[in-house]
Amino acid sequence: MNSPNVLIAGRWQTSRGTEAFHAADPAKGVDLPEPYPISDWQECESALAAASEAAAGEIDPARLSHFLTRYAERIETRRKEIVEMANLETALPTAPRLNDVELPRTTGQLRQAAAAALEGSWAMATIDTKSNIRSRLASVGPVLIFGPNNFPFAFNAVSGGDFAAAIATGSPVIAKAHPSHPGATRLLAEEAFAAVGECGLPKAMVQMIYHLSKSDGLRMASDPRIGAVAFTGSRTGGMALKAAADAAGKPVYLEMSSVNPVVILPGALRERLTKIADEFADSCLAATGQFCTNPGLVVLVAGEQTDKFVAEVKSRFDSRPAGPLLARRGAASLAAGVKSLIDAGAAVITGGRAAEGAGWRYANTLLRVSGEEFLANPKHLQGEAFGNAALLVIARDVAETTKILGQLEGNLTGCIYSETHGADDVIYNHLAAILRRRVGRLINDKMPTGVAVSSAMNHGGPYPATGHPGFTAVGIPASLRRFGRLECYDNVRHSRLPNLLVNKNPTGKTWRMIDSAWTCDDVRTEPN
Amino acid sequence: MNSPNVLIAGRWQTSRGTEAFHAADPAKGVDLPEPYPISDWQECESALAAASEAAAGEIDPARLSHFLTRYAERIETRRKEIVEMANLETALPTAPRLNDVELPRTTGQLRQAAAAALEGSWAMATIDTKSNIRSRLASVGPVLIFGPNNFPFAFNAVSGGDFAAAIATGSPVIAKAHPSHPGATRLLAEEAFAAVGECGLPKAMVQMIYHLSKSDGLRMASDPRIGAVAFTGSRTGGMALKAAADAAGKPVYLEMSSVNPVVILPGALRERLTKIADEFADSCLAATGQFCTNPGLVVLVAGEQTDKFVAEVKSRFDSRPAGPLLARRGAASLAAGVKSLIDAGAAVITGGRAAEGAGWRYANTLLRVSGEEFLANPKHLQGEAFGNAALLVIARDVAETTKILGQLEGNLTGCIYSETHGADDVIYNHLAAILRRRVGRLINDKMPTGVAVSSAMNHGGPYPATGHPGFTAVGIPASLRRFGRLECYDNVRHSRLPNLLVNKNPTGKTWRMIDSAWTCDDVRTEPN
Repeated sequence: MNSPNVLIAGRWQTSRGTEAFHAADPAKGVDLPEPYPISDWQECESALAAASEAAAGEIDPARLSHFLTRYAERIETRRKEIVEMANLETALPTAPRLNDVELPRTTGQLRQAAAAALEGSWAMATIDTKSNIRSRLASVGPVLIFGPNNFPFAFNAVSGGDFAAAIATGSPVIAKAHPSHPGATRLLAEEAFAAVGECGLPKAMVQMIYHLSKSDGLRMASDPRIGAVAFTGSRTGGMALKAAADAAGKPVYLEMSSVNPVVILPGALRERLTKIADEFADSCLAATGQFCTNPGLVVLVAGEQTDKFVAEVKSRFDSRPAGPLLARRGAASLAAGVKSLIDAGAAVITGGRAAEGAGWRYANTLLRVSGEEFLANPKHLQGEAFGNAALLVIARDVAETTKILGQLEGNLTGCIYSETHGADDVIYNHLAAILRRRVGRLINDKMPTGVAVSSAMNHGGPYPATGHPGFTAVGIPASLRRFGRLECYDNVRHSRLPNLLVNKNPTGKTWRMIDSAWTCDDVRTEPN
Repeated sequence: MNSPNVLIAGRWQTSRGTEAFHAADPAKGVDLPEPYPISDWQECESALAAASEAAAGEIDPARLSHFLTRYAERIETRRKEIVEMANLETALPTAPRLNDVELPRTTGQLRQAAAAALEGSWAMATIDTKSNIRSRLASVGPVLIFGPNNFPFAFNAVSGGDFAAAIATGSPVIAKAHPSHPGATRLLAEEAFAAVGECGLPKAMVQMIYHLSKSDGLRMASDPRIGAVAFTGSRTGGMALKAAADAAGKPVYLEMSSVNPVVILPGALRERLTKIADEFADSCLAATGQFCTNPGLVVLVAGEQTDKFVAEVKSRFDSRPAGPLLARRGAASLAAGVKSLIDAGAAVITGGRAAEGAGWRYANTLLRVSGEEFLANPKHLQGEAFGNAALLVIARDVAETTKILGQLEGNLTGCIYSETHGADDVIYNHLAAILRRRVGRLINDKMPTGVAVSSAMNHGGPYPATGHPGFTAVGIPASLRRFGRLECYDNVRHSRLPNLLVNKNPTGKTWRMIDSAWTCDDVRTEPN
């Protein structure tokens, strides 16, 4: 087959796969000419064996850090080609999105991970001098990463947050490209592999396959040689992987669907209705709504201001062009999501149909239900319609709003807009307490899109938004700890301890918990 | 029914259960007269509803801390009665074990958890001042705890490490007593509930049922109102709970079987054979071998010294009385475990049969296989025989030892004994690298029993020793984090933040990560 090589076992090799797939140009709605291979099980098996071997020894954090930095630099050097390929495959705008936002975010993440790897504080080294017990997090082993379709760089399995976090912990990565942007993934993997060579990492530290069958994917996720699985994508895909990984006792980190409820309180509307309508339309329609944290469910209290807000939003949804969707399948899935909401009782304010224009487009869609209707069918009315669509839930009053929030499943985010000077504070306190338990990130007075790469970020949340409520996929050092295995050394001779646990602080600036206090100092050793 | 009340929904109430069970006196091998109720689903349902209500509001850490401290004090006040009851139900010696070791360990854990709750550092508050994003771990919600049979206090569902950790995070506990010591559990629950009242915690903060059907247990573990599940016990029971909790997306922390491999290198035998034989016999036969970290598998290299070691151990096993086992079922399970090893090729050095004496006893049992035999059937030859039994694997040489270690599943601990002055160091380095990845706690030159309650302890390990390799069941503050949900506050107004995340350090000594550095300081606020 003439299709591009896969990156397996330390070299770019011709795929044995006999089937192929094509990415598409979503702006035109046509398949791209290049055929990409679908790997067979033997290829997966080679990748597993090589990853396992790469994970056998402990890798010097300085080397990992060097790799992550060099990779970031190499991406920047090849920036133009990478951005153009991603633009072709996703129709996401070259500027500002791909070139000025997502690519710098991606290299920024890689550099933050490089710094974290070098510093070592992520590993939470803990030393109890009295009992001479010492522990730290260490690589969990090879990490199998499935990236989503909506971020060709920042969440790409071979360059995104999961990748950076896994590598920083010393875990070899088997990246499974998203089939909607194999070309961008290939370019990134080329740079990653070149950096692997430059920095002297095990050759199989980074492996990449374009596609595989669903059953091979599940089989890989449950293979004994895999240390952990990371996935960003649909709930259906995530749940299947979770079941496979759970059954094999593997940690699995999922970032699945989320409708990201936004509650807009009456005082906020009285105070700044137009501004909020702008913010909402911007957030909901950015990138044609294809963000994990897209605000898909807005809860309002009935009244004149709310009617006005609905009209303002409608006019914005109507006046802005419907952007291209990432894939034919995405358009079909958005249409199905909207239909499901309508079937469950939602009324169409605007949209609810395919849109004009080249490629796959769906009209900017605004739906509404009353609070009573929502409460009659909360399960189906909080289904995700991934894309440029949102459901407004108009509650009769605060009491009904309370009930609505009480019916929400786990979400990545939840926002409450309230009046600036305290007019909504009593209601806020009441509602925030309910929303708090249902979301990973509670937000005030701004929309959920835009996930800062902050040490305090939580891009995670209660099930079914993710598979474990204690972890985040974004934010360093916390995201690294997903790929850590707790290793304890009890009475182990000092010369046999890993660098991170010896008396001397390995870098002079590594945070370690010594006798229950965090410090960058050495372990104080009494003269005998 | 005249049987003891269950503690549900804030009061001691007559169980609705129509079935009952009896604990036994293992020293005599007879059932005890008191019938204890088996709760029905409606009782479980009441407990779930009450726990969910108790979890609705955030509880002041000072109150949690006060409770844990008062509970420890109350246990001490009632110490004699509690110890006598546990002795009756378990045949574990009153002194030193129950009175002088396990009870102080238990109250010590409660007090450590009290201090951790008050200090709040466990929650890993993280503040990014530039973006005003703040996060912390907060209670995951009600925790369902299943305690094991072998520690009536220190791992009891209503007083042990899981209990202390869950309460310290503010999570209400539903404790499922182990049916082998319901009386001790009742006494403890009485003191816990009295302390709940004294300290003004929600009445349903602590609930306790004696027993339930397997299907009701699984149903509880997958109930939406449960935040997390903690279990210590057999692999069969743990696996069933894991499947139920996984399917419902609940974090589940298991501490299951482990054979705790011990490798004794040739130099160590040459140097201190008798001492090691003593240590091994002491560790393996203590509490009739009924410890999670009991050394059940010993790997040695064939030779004269090893023959002598085997003889020394045999003479100790033969000369010490076989202690009582905790239950009829435990004795049957030990016999079955030994039989399974024999069926898989192990030869009996001594024991391998029931022993004389009152109650349930099994002869101190020593088995052996060659390395070659082990490698022919590693799966069955590393099965657990829980109790006073161990399998010696005699490898031909170091190369074979390497292969043997490479076949080990996940274990809680792994020990290597080596010569003091470096004679074994080359072999050590080679073997430790292999063992390291298969155990939670790597130990040098001592036996695995005796799990210190240390901040650096890992009482956990790779699957199937536990369900997640990143967490420990023992050791504060790390064990608390199992019951934490990551809560992020993005742009949330300062007055609305939880205490732990406001600018001022809530206690003056709470560790928080502010702008990527751990500190007990306040957030520095620039004058505007």
